Order: sequence, then structure tokens, then C-alpha cells
Amino acid sequence: MAADDKDDRDQGAAPSALAACVRVVMGRPLANRESGSEAIGIAEGVPALGLDGLSSTAYGPEAALAILGAAGVAGLAALGPIMLVILVLLGVLFVSYWQTIEAYPKSGGAYSVAKANLGVNASLLAVAALMIDYVLNVAVGISAGVAALISAAPELHPYTLPLCLGILALLTLANLRGTTEAGRLFALPTYLFIGCFLAVIAIGAYASLANGGHPHPVVPPPPTPEAAEALGWWLLLRAFASGCTAMTGIEAVSNGVNAFRQPQVRNARLTLTFIVVALGILLAGIAYLAMTYGVLAMDQTQPGYQSVLSQIVGAVAGRGVFYYVAIGSALVILCLSANTSFVGLPRLCQMVAQDGFLPAPFAIVGRRLVYCIGILYLTVTAGFLLAVFDGITDRLIPLFAIGAFLTFTMSQSGMVAHWRKKLAQAPQAKERRRILVKLGINAVGAVATLAALLIIIVAKFTAGGWITILTIPCVIVLLRVIHHYYEIREEALRDDDQLQFHPAKPPLVLVMTREWNRLTDKALGFAMELSPDVTAVHLAALEGSDVQSEEKRLRAQWEKDVEKSAIVAQGGRAPQLVFLSAPYRRIHAPLLKLMKELAKKNPDRTIAVLIPELVKRHWWEWLLSTHRASRLRNAVLEYGGPRVVAIVVPWHLTPPKIEDALTKEELAEPFRIRNVLRLRRRKRAAKA
Amino acid sequence: MAADDKDDRDQGAAPSALAACVRVVMGRPLANRESGSEAIGIAEGVPALGLDGLSSTAYGPEAALAILGAAGVAGLAALGPIMLVILVLLGVLFVSYWQTIEAYPKSGGAYSVAKANLGVNASLLAVAALMIDYVLNVAVGISAGVAALISAAPELHPYTLPLCLGILALLTLANLRGTTEAGRLFALPTYLFIGCFLAVIAIGAYASLANGGHPHPVVPPPPTPEAAEALGWWLLLRAFASGCTAMTGIEAVSNGVNAFRQPQVRNARLTLTFIVVALGILLAGIAYLAMTYGVLAMDQTQPGYQSVLSQIVGAVAGRGVFYYVAIGSALVILCLSANTSFVGLPRLCQMVAQDGFLPAPFAIVGRRLVYCIGILYLTVTAGFLLAVFDGITDRLIPLFAIGAFLTFTMSQSGMVAHWRKKLAQAPQAKERRRILVKLGINAVGAVATLAALLIIIVAKFTAGGWITILTIPCVIVLLRVIHHYYEIREEALRDDDQLQFHPAKPPLVLVMTREWNRLTDKALGFAMELSPDVTAVHLAALEGSDVQSEEKRLRAQWEKDVEKSAIVAQGGRAPQLVFLSAPYRRIHAPLLKLMKELAKKNPDRTIAVLIPELVKRHWWEWLLSTHRASRLRNAVLEYGGPRVVAIVVPWHLTPPKIEDALTKEELAEPFRIRNVLRLRRRKRAAKA
Repeated sequence: MAADDKDDRDQGAAPSALAACVRVVMGRPLANRESGSEAIGIAEGVPALGLDGLSSTAYGPEAALAILGAAGVAGLAALGPIMLVILVLLGVLFVSYWQTIEAYPKSGGAYSVAKANLGVNASLLAVAALMIDYVLNVAVGISAGVAALISAAPELHPYTLPLCLGILALLTLANLRGTTEAGRLFALPTYLFIGCFLAVIAIGAYASLANGGHPHPVVPPPPTPEAAEALGWWLLLRAFASGCTAMTGIEAVSNGVNAFRQPQVRNARLTLTFIVVALGILLAGIAYLAMTYGVLAMDQTQPGYQSVLSQIVGAVAGRGVFYYVAIGSALVILCLSANTSFVGLPRLCQMVAQDGFLPAPFAIVGRRLVYCIGILYLTVTAGFLLAVFDGITDRLIPLFAIGAFLTFTMSQSGMVAHWRKKLAQAPQAKERRRILVKLGINAVGAVATLAALLIIIVAKFTAGGWITILTIPCVIVLLRVIHHYYEIREEALRDDDQLQFHPAKPPLVLVMTREWNRLTDKALGFAMELSPDVTAVHLAALEGSDVQSEEKRLRAQWEKDVEKSAIVAQGGRAPQLVFLSAPYRRIHAPLLKLMKELAKKNPDRTIAVLIPELVKRHWWEWLLSTHRASRLRNAVLEYGGPRVVAIVVPWHLTPPKIEDALTKEELAEPFRIRNVLRLRRRKRAAKA
Repeated sequence: MAADDKDDRDQGAAPSALAACVRVVMGRPLANRESGSEAIGIAEGVPALGLDGLSSTAYGPEAALAILGAAGVAGLAALGPIMLVILVLLGVLFVSYWQTIEAYPKSGGAYSVAKANLGVNASLLAVAALMIDYVLNVAVGISAGVAALISAAPELHPYTLPLCLGILALLTLANLRGTTEAGRLFALPTYLFIGCFLAVIAIGAYASLANGGHPHPVVPPPPTPEAAEALGWWLLLRAFASGCTAMTGIEAVSNGVNAFRQPQVRNARLTLTFIVVALGILLAGIAYLAMTYGVLAMDQTQPGYQSVLSQIVGAVAGRGVFYYVAIGSALVILCLSANTSFVGLPRLCQMVAQDGFLPAPFAIVGRRLVYCIGILYLTVTAGFLLAVFDGITDRLIPLFAIGAFLTFTMSQSGMVAHWRKKLAQAPQAKERRRILVKLGINAVGAVATLAALLIIIVAKFTAGGWITILTIPCVIVLLRVIHHYYEIREEALRDDDQLQFHPAKPPLVLVMTREWNRLTDKALGFAMELSPDVTAVHLAALEGSDVQSEEKRLRAQWEKDVEKSAIVAQGGRAPQLVFLSAPYRRIHAPLLKLMKELAKKNPDRTIAVLIPELVKRHWWEWLLSTHRASRLRNAVLEYGGPRVVAIVVPWHLTPPKIEDALTKEELAEPFRIRNVLRLRRRKRAAKA
């Protein structure tokens, strides 16, 4: 059975208009062998894995300032201490992830770490937190990007939500096409963003120092409003909780260690260091400039809104070309940071689906080698969040912070458990001390992130945090229910025995007929190839006097056209003809009763229901058909019982060509067949 | 095979929540034997078949006045002559339909008459006209009913469209449930409507005569506006065209002659006479009162709108209890007149579908013995029209008039052709003269309605008439295209030969496998019942190193679990195992190629593709499945070619019960089987 389908290849496929459209929009299908990506170094690692962390600078400080603004000038002054705490926390996380990279060089995601160390329940908690985190990363990234855009072009303010959804649609399309080459494209905007804002910080800091801490803004920010609230602990806690979103995304490096070139661990650690240092400088700088220039967060729902970054750049450097380059780079990296979720969530879902906690379609690899269902799931949920919250970053922040810090805590706790296991295995005192230090570091990380998480939950509960808190247990229950179904299914299908062949008795074949035509002929002919026991079942869906005469006509035709020639061909065993009436016009009802009768009387036989079906190849054929055959087929399969099979005999109005079913690439693929038993049979034949 | 399903009946079905809901909303299913309706007399005939015609009084005169109002007082005075022309036309139609009733006592609808006498093209024109007419009758009836309602309760004015759509939904539901008992319910509002308005006319005419033609209105109508336009021919033509809608619906009696008690023709003619006389008196009376009381049509889009009937009743009798009874009866009969379309259109569509000009689903009888698709089609199209025209009667009138008069003309022309045929068959001079008179009457009817139609088209073209004019050819082309498809299908399936049985060679069976489980076992077992040539096809959807090892494992398992026991059971003929790879992850691609190879090498064998399928019985199972089996089945059926069949082997997680598939009524139905050949075989056995 060698491949000799050369003529097919020359002939070429004639794709339908729809297929042609899909090909243009989605690109040609990719073969499995086309997967795989190059290993990356530090220079590519920063944009590929650091985007998410670095872009947090665009919304983290702004989120804190949005709360502090209520306390006016006093609030602005409090940004310094809050940012200091955040930077300390960032340092703790840095050291913790430094260790995770070494311990889990394959994939140090919170799900893997929790699954390996904390058991199923913890891993499901991690999945729930991660899924929320990924979805909110998309929503927040896009909404913050659009906030940058409407700062630069205020006339776009009324279109905030459509702009968000448009960017989401573009990201979805780009990811459905597959973004294998995208890594390098990300480098330019990432380094541009870092460069621009380091320059802004340098210029601003110089101006500030040169003017004794009171620089003259080029474009002054709006005046600091009167304090509406006294600066108290509650305000500070809430500002800290919001500001914590500045740390989101720094776990990305630990998830992607295996993407690095050798030596992987060293490269990953250097990349992480670069990212954390850059993030720290940017956060500290932005906080300093906001305080010296008197920049507070504005209300994104109001026209004339300016993001904090936009106000700072405007105050430091004016609204020239540099302003547009800097804000443009912020817009691009925020959208690209949303893109990291499109890479991460589908892969996470695929892993979870393979473990049987998410529906199997999440693990299906699409035509462009991406997990389409995961991508579409992300689009739908992020789009829903954007729509519900009108694309306003500030409203999404509380939800985001909880998801992110729950993920941190799960990952750190997992590492603590990991080191405890190692500790139990390590015999030497020196080794044990080394491990104890590491355990301590991760324990500090776990405690710090847990403390931050608790603060965030308390401070943000009424501001939307309750949504996340409520969603997490629902997601866990859902994952458990899904897993339960797959377990039951697995259990029912498990088979460890040898195949038991019963003495092969041919099946009882029922051939469904309604009219007398070539399709019925074909079906009867095939039925008689299968078994000597063939019964044609005529379904009179409507009772009445004219149906009685119809029955007579069919009986006469049966005797003349079928019975005689069958007796000649088969030597006396002619098929039977049986009439069933369906007074309620549901043709499966009498058929199921007949099948039950037959099953009772023939406990050792299979009942094969043979259904002739006209093949529909166009949507309009679907509209023009009564779908009796497919409804009958479904009823037989669903309710027929364990000893029933359905045989569909197709009839084509125009002969089908397999070329129509295959893509150009599939047709070009050489046809290989690996036949196990053929070889053995040949050997046996040679022996005989 | 007698019925012994007593235990099933006692056990009873456990319907799903959805099925229970449907049962409450839609009612229990009806058996075929429950169809049939009682014959009616004149008293029931007037409400059953006259509603449509009589309710036209509510919008016909108003439609004329809406145009005449532009000419102020002079326009109002012109209503008299216009109504006179309309009444003459009504007389002509009356005499014409008097004849149609005798000539077509079964069903004298425009479609039947045109099909029998004028050929296919004319009958399709009639179908197109009727379909438009029926849909617009619903839209106009409901919108005029709501106009009456908002006249009586002006605070409902802002909800015009929602009220229209609500009534439409109620009518749809009532008709989906079946409205067999409705006929008698219609009598009360119909006679109440006739009685009320005859009383209004009598009181108003007396008051007018007593006051020398200038009665004092109880509630005065708004003052007649200044003339915005001079009274010219063009205005009169447009007013006449709109007023013609007062005649719509009088064809109903001729469509329903067979519903009458014996003597059918006499009863039908008396009913027609009663309806036409009542309609004539009402139209003349309303026109007279409108002129003497100075009532003009108001703009339905403006708050404070009062329909012409409401103004007249208010002017004559004030706004007491009588007013609300009269307007209430008008509201009810307008909605019920919309209901006549729900009876007529689905039946028309069923007839046309049986002739192959509409999709077959239009001929499917639903669970309540009604044609559900036709009803839903009517709801969607009428709802669309109401939504587009905001539920304003005046905007729908131009479309309606064209459809109705085209139907009249088609029906009358058909009758002319009918009498010409009769004339050719009649030998006697006396008989010929009698027929010539009848031909003359219908010819006058045809010419008069054609003339009216042309006037309407010219006068109403820009006011929306163009929509109808454009729709009609589109509908005809669509009907033709549909018929063409069915003809091709019929042609391809027609079979006049004896069944040719080829020497029965068992099929080549391909068993699809992916994992090794009970489902695969069951499928292999069944395959070996069918044929000695069984090949298990393992579809490796993903290539890669781990798949290679998977292949090795499967080979070993195959040898151990399948091959040995098969050789023992079948005497040396073991099934083969074959590996196919699908590098583009579409598993049907390599399978179709394999099938093509097999078909080429075995030109005399059928190829049966055996697909094990897990049966999904809940919507959430559908979400949790990858649907590989059903996609494979569809690909095999669609592209496999003429010698391929698909065998689906179902696997149930929980054993199915046929009780779940059947309704209570179907379970209670005794199981009857009429077996033709069993009897003959017994006779043969007795002889031997």
C-alpha cells in the first residue's frame, strides 16, 4: 500500500470559499514537525519573559496614587514609604524565584510546583488563581494600554471600551495564527520603553535636584486637589494593596526556564535579575517624580483623563516627539504584556486538561499548532471583564491583585514544601544547612506574600475583591466535577482483560425505508452482505386511509422487486418487510420498541440498524432536509441499548472527492502506513 | 411479536426537566387519530371565516382618511365617492367568489385555482402574493389592534412596538399548542363587534338626521386641519388605493368551503352573503359618520393618537362603558384576524412544500398536529415587519394592499381560465350560455381587481409598495431554485428496476482505535461478526518520540490481548493492526487516503468504517468531549465515496432506557407490527 497519489497532488484541491477565507485569515496549516522554537539568551529573554513585569510600572504606581489622592498633598507624600515596602517585597520575591529557577528548571509554574509538593487541592487552588490572574492580566494590560492611548489622544476617550475590545480581537487573531516569530519583535518596544522612562527619570531627577526638590514642570499636571479624607492606616493599606499590582508578572521567568539557552539556570537568573533591577529603578523613579512634580491619578471615566505616566512625561519633557515615543512604547508593551497571557493560559489549560481537570478540547492542538480553545476562552472571559468594567483599569485592579498574590503565595508555599522534602532526604549536616537556608528564604517569601495577600483581601474586598474570592471556590468545584466525570468514564472503559471473542453470529439487520428508491436498494444490498437475517422496516409516520393503500402498493413492489431476486441470489432466504406505525409522528418510538422486542428474543445477537442517509454538503441542503435520518440515528445510538449499532449508508447527489476534504498540505503529505501484522503474516507464509 | 410492554407502562417515564417544561407550555402530544374537526354552519362560519374581512373596517377607512386629510375639509367630503367605488368593487368580488365556492368546493384558494387553471408560473405568483398577504395580515391586524388599544389607553402609546410583539408571541404560542377549539371562542367578540358598531352607526345616523346633518359630538374629534394639498386626482387615487385594504380577507370563505356542514355550497354562500352585507353596512356607516362628525385620521406615531373608530365611537356615544366594550371588541377581533393567517399560511406552505417548492420541513406535522415551521416562519417575518415599521399600521398598508389585490386577481383569472375549459367541454348551447355568463362575471372581477391592483401599484409604489413589488420575483426565484434541487434529488434516487443482488461478499471492515479499552473491544468483536477481513486502524494524531514508544506498547498489547484469542476463536484469521499518522492533526486525512487505496485494490467490496463512539446524553458531556468520533463519522460519510458505509458502535456510561426516549403517550400506545412476509412464510411452512 505505497503512496501513489501523485495524480491527486497534480490535480490540486478546489477549496470552498469559506476554506479559502480561513486560509487567508489564519494562514496555512502547520504540521507537527514544524513545531519547536529556538532557545533564547538574556537579550531575548528580557522582552520575551520580562514584558509582563516591566509593564506593571504603567498601572501599579497609578493604582496606589488613585487611592492616595483622597488625602491630597499628605497622600502624595505617603507614596514614598508605600513604594519602599513594595520594593522590599519585590526583593523578597526576587530571591525566592532565584531559588525556584534552580529547583524547577523545566517549568516552575505555580501549578507544577503546587502539584508536586502540596497535593491536588493546593494545585487546584493554584489553577484557579492562575486562571484568574491570566485573564485579568489581559484585561488590565489592554485597559492600561488604552489609558495611555487616550492620554495622548484625548479625542478617543469616548471609544475606550471599543478600543479595548478591538485590541483584544487583534491579539486573539494574532495568537490563533500562532506567534512563533513574535519573540524578536517584542525586543524593540521593550528596550525602547525601558530607555525612554530611564531617560525621563534621569532628566526629572536632575531637574528636581537642580531646583531643590521643586522642579518647574514643562506641562504642569492638574493641581493637587483638597484632601477629602484624612491620611490614616486604612487609606495606606488600600493604597499598598493597589500598588502591589506593580509586582505582577515577575514569575514569568521561572515558568519559562526551559526556553533558555545553556546554561539555562544561569541565563534565567541573569534575566530575572535584569528585569527586577529595571523594574525596581522604574518604580522608584516614577514614585519620586510623582512626588516631586505633584502628580496624582485622574479619573479614567472622565474626559481629559491623563495617565500618571503621561502626566510625568509631560511634566518632565513636554509634549513633543519624545512624549509620543515614550507613551507609544508604553501602549505597545502593555498590549504585548496582555499577549503573554495568550501564551501562558492555553498552555496551563492544556496541562490541566491532560490531568483531566478541564474539558479535553483544551488539549486539542489547532491548525496553527496552538491551543485554540484556551485562546478563545481567554478572549471571551477577558472581553466579558472589559465589558462589565467598561475598560477602566482602576476597577479591575482589586480583582487582579488578589489573583496575582494568591499565585505568588501558592508558588512560594510549594517551594517550602519542596525544600522540606529535600531536607528529609539529605543526610549530611552541611547539605541540610544549605537546604535550611533555602527553605528559610522561600518561607520568608511565602509569609510576605501571604501577608500582602491578606492585606489586599481585607483592603479590596468591597472594591471588587469579593468577585475573585467568590470565583475561586466555584472554579475549584467545577474542576473537581469535571475530573469526577472523566474518572467515571475512564473507570467504565478500563479493560485489562484479553479480548473475548464470542462465536461470531451475524447480526440482525433492520433496514429503515420510507420510499422505494436507489438509496433503499443500496442499503438492502449492503445489509444482505452482512447477514442472512435482514428485515426492512417501513415507517409509516402518518396513519390514515391513504397510508393503507400506500402499504399495499409497497407490499406488491416488495414482492416483485426484492423478494424474487433475493430468493434467487441467496437461495431462499429473502429479507422480511415489516410496517410500523408512529401515531405521534416520532419515528423512533415504534422502532425502539421493535428493537427491545428483538433484543429480548435474541439475547446473543447484535442488532444493527441500517439507516440510508442523503449526504448534505451545503448549508442550504441542511435547510431543505427534514433530518429524519440523523434524528433516527441519534435516537438509536442514544437509547438503543448495549447490543445495538447504527450503520449509516450514505448517498451522494454528486460523487465526493477526497481532495475536497483535505488541505493542500495534507494532499502533499506522502501516505505512510505502518502495518504490524503484515510483516508477520509474510513470515508465516514464507514458512508454510 | 405481540405487544407485551405492560411493565413499561406501569413503570412510567421519568422525563427530563426540559421535557416537563415543554409539556406544560405546549400541552401533551396529540396522536394522528385526534385530528379532524366538526363541520360548521352559518352561525359558526361568520366568526371562523369572516373575522378577517370584517376586521378590515378598522383600518380600511382610516387608511383612506389618512391620505384625504391632507386636503382638509374637501378631502373629508371625498370619502363618500371613494367608499362608493370600494363598495361597488366589493359587490363584484362577492359575485365572483359566489361562483368560486361552487366550482371549487374543496379548496378555492388562489394557489389551487391558479395551479389547476393557469400553470406552474401563475401558481408560484399566487404563492408569492399569498405569502406576503398572510404575513402582512398578521402585521396589520396586530398593529391596528394595538392602535385601538392605545386610543383607549393613551398612556400605553410609548409601548406600541413591544405590545405588538407581545401579542404576536401570544398568538404564536397559542397556535403552536393547536387551536382546534378556538372556533367557538371567536363567536362572542365577532358578533359583539358587529352589534356595537351597527348600534354606533344607528345612533350616529339618527343624531345626524335629527340635527340636519350637523350632529353635536359627545366627545368632539380634533378640529379638521387646514388643507395642505389641493384635492386632485393623484390624492384621490392614493386614498382609494389605501381604502382598498377594507376588502382584504373576504376570500376566506372560498378557501374553507369544505369546513361547512351539508349542504356545503349553500351554507358557504349564505355565510359569504352575511359577511359581505355586514362589511358593506359597516364601511358605508363608518364613512358616513366620519363625514358628518368631521373625523380624520391622526398620526399613530404621535402621543394622543386616536384611531378613526375610537373618534367615531367617542363622538357618537361618549367615553363610557359602551366605548370600552366597542373598542375592546375591535381590539380582540383585530388580533383574532391576525390569527387566521396562522391557520392559513402554514397550510398553504404545507401544500407548496408537498409540491416541492418549499423546504420539506414546512410539511412536518408537529407534536400538536400543527405545521410548526410554517407558524414560526410567520412569526419571524411578521415580527420583522412590525419591528422595521415600528408597529405603525399606516406604514404597512401599502405593502398589504398590493399583496391582497394580487391574490384577488390571480384567483379571478384562474376562474376565468376554469370557465374557458368548461366552455370547451360543454356541447349544449344552453349549458354554454350559462358558463359564458359565469365566465363574464369572473372576467369582470378579474379586470376590476387588476385595475385596482394597477392603481394601487402606481399610487403606492414610493410609499413602500416597491418592497412588495421587489419581493415577489425574489420569492418566485427562490421557490423555483428549491424545486430544482428536489427535482435533481428525485431524479438521482429514482429507481424503477428490480433490486440487483450481487453475490454477497463480506465488507472490508476498518475499526478506528485510539486507546485500548472496552469500547475498542466491543467494536472489534462486532467487526468480527461482520467479516473475516478486519483491520484495526490506530490514529496517531501527534507525531513525536513519545508516540513511537506508545506504538510499541500498543503492538505488544495487540499481540497479547487480541491476536492470540482471535486466532483461537476464528481459526487463524486474525485482524490486522495498522498505524496511520496525521501530521496535521486532522485524523480523517490519512483515513480517507487509506480508504481510497483499499477501494482501488478491492473494486468489488464495500468498505465499512467502524467508529466506536461514547454516547453523550447531556449538554455538559458535549462540552467535555473532543468530538473526534462524530467528526470522523461525518468525514467518512461526506467524502468516503459510494462504496463506504459508517458503522457507529455506541458506548453508554449508564445503560439507556427506552422509556427516556418516549413520551407517556408513546409508551401507552400498544405496539403493533404488520409483518407481510411472516404470513407467507407460515403458509409456505404449512405446505412443506
